[in-house]
Amino acid sequence: MDTYAKTKLNKVRVSKRAAYDRETVHAILDDGLVAHVGFEDKDWPMVIPMIYARIGETLYLHGAKAARFAKALGKGVPVCITVTLLDGLVLARSAFHSSVNYRSVVVHGFAHTVTDPDEKAKALTEVTDRIAPGRWDEAREMNDKELKSTGVISVSIEHAAAKVRTGGPIDDDEDYDLPIWGGVVPVRQVFDAPEDDGRLVEGVDIPESVSQILRRSTG
Amino acid sequence: MDTYAKTKLNKVRVSKRAAYDRETVHAILDDGLVAHVGFEDKDWPMVIPMIYARIGETLYLHGAKAARFAKALGKGVPVCITVTLLDGLVLARSAFHSSVNYRSVVVHGFAHTVTDPDEKAKALTEVTDRIAPGRWDEAREMNDKELKSTGVISVSIEHAAAKVRTGGPIDDDEDYDLPIWGGVVPVRQVFDAPEDDGRLVEGVDIPESVSQILRRSTG
Repeated sequence: MDTYAKTKLNKVRVSKRAAYDRETVHAILDDGLVAHVGFEDKDWPMVIPMIYARIGETLYLHGAKAARFAKALGKGVPVCITVTLLDGLVLARSAFHSSVNYRSVVVHGFAHTVTDPDEKAKALTEVTDRIAPGRWDEAREMNDKELKSTGVISVSIEHAAAKVRTGGPIDDDEDYDLPIWGGVVPVRQVFDAPEDDGRLVEGVDIPESVSQILRRSTG
Repeated sequence: MDTYAKTKLNKVRVSKRAAYDRETVHAILDDGLVAHVGFEDKDWPMVIPMIYARIGETLYLHGAKAARFAKALGKGVPVCITVTLLDGLVLARSAFHSSVNYRSVVVHGFAHTVTDPDEKAKALTEVTDRIAPGRWDEAREMNDKELKSTGVISVSIEHAAAKVRTGGPIDDDEDYDLPIWGGVVPVRQVFDAPEDDGRLVEGVDIPESVSQILRRSTG
């Protein structure tokens, strides 16, 4: 199995919940829409939500060029990128064993500003299509000025680990005799009916990209 | 209006999207289920998803006592706690103006291990009830051993800022003439029908806490 090296940095404490294989890590990264990006800023840790895309072993982060992030980063600084998908609330018979089901990935690497125009365009295509599949080709093309003013950060995955919890509560043996409900409430992200902005040119219909988004809801 | 001080650390670049008032910040914190907690670990930034609760101006984070987090923290180290709620995908006519609607809060403060048993019990009650309202009283009581082995971290809010984007796409004037769809696809977190673990004592019904969770879906 093709895996990331287990290091002091990415080792997950509860090993039965850990996964280091690329397939699991990539699948979670490709399922998320928002990443939480951690870096140091003015001697404080800083965590900022960003949209992103993965191409192979590189994550691309998108933000306006003037943003704090692009200023602080893009110089090879170490970053942590975490993606978390909440799948369920786990209600055990005891408060102690209550938990949540989730899939998460923690990635570490170094942030670099993407300067190559081709790489930048490719990254922006992927980020746009992550939000709405095929949207890049539907939308009005990005012009040179826009391309220049858009900051893209690349982070090559140096360390990565996934952590996954699935299934029902695990109660203490004696607690199963208690008249207390135990189980899971599944959590899902859904996409509701699209709302156009009231300024459509006549005859413009809901595009394929939006239909693709709506199909995601049902998992 | 009661607000957090605007500092170099928490100042949001796009000021029209920023909010520093406690009401907005608290509302977003109280709406989230998972926080992304950033801190320094082995000279790297680290971002870990955690469940949490707010009591007044303090955030409480929950994790097993042996966890990396509790080891690294609890000694007054600076942390960043970010909560992000994704509300919509914003499809502009141009890829450049495409965006997402969201509510996020970034909090900075110092992490301390909670040692006072009363504060710890109160924090665990709140964290448990955040996942499922009223669950603390429904569930089997936490015993002393469990209370001791559960790590709770408190972070008093030193700096905080909210960032919120709402509404439709904002396209360039000339792009409104293009035959391209523009609008928002709303995103929601929903809670599905509860699945018991098949080990219920006869006659045990879905509890009030689960009914409360299900009512959240409709927002």
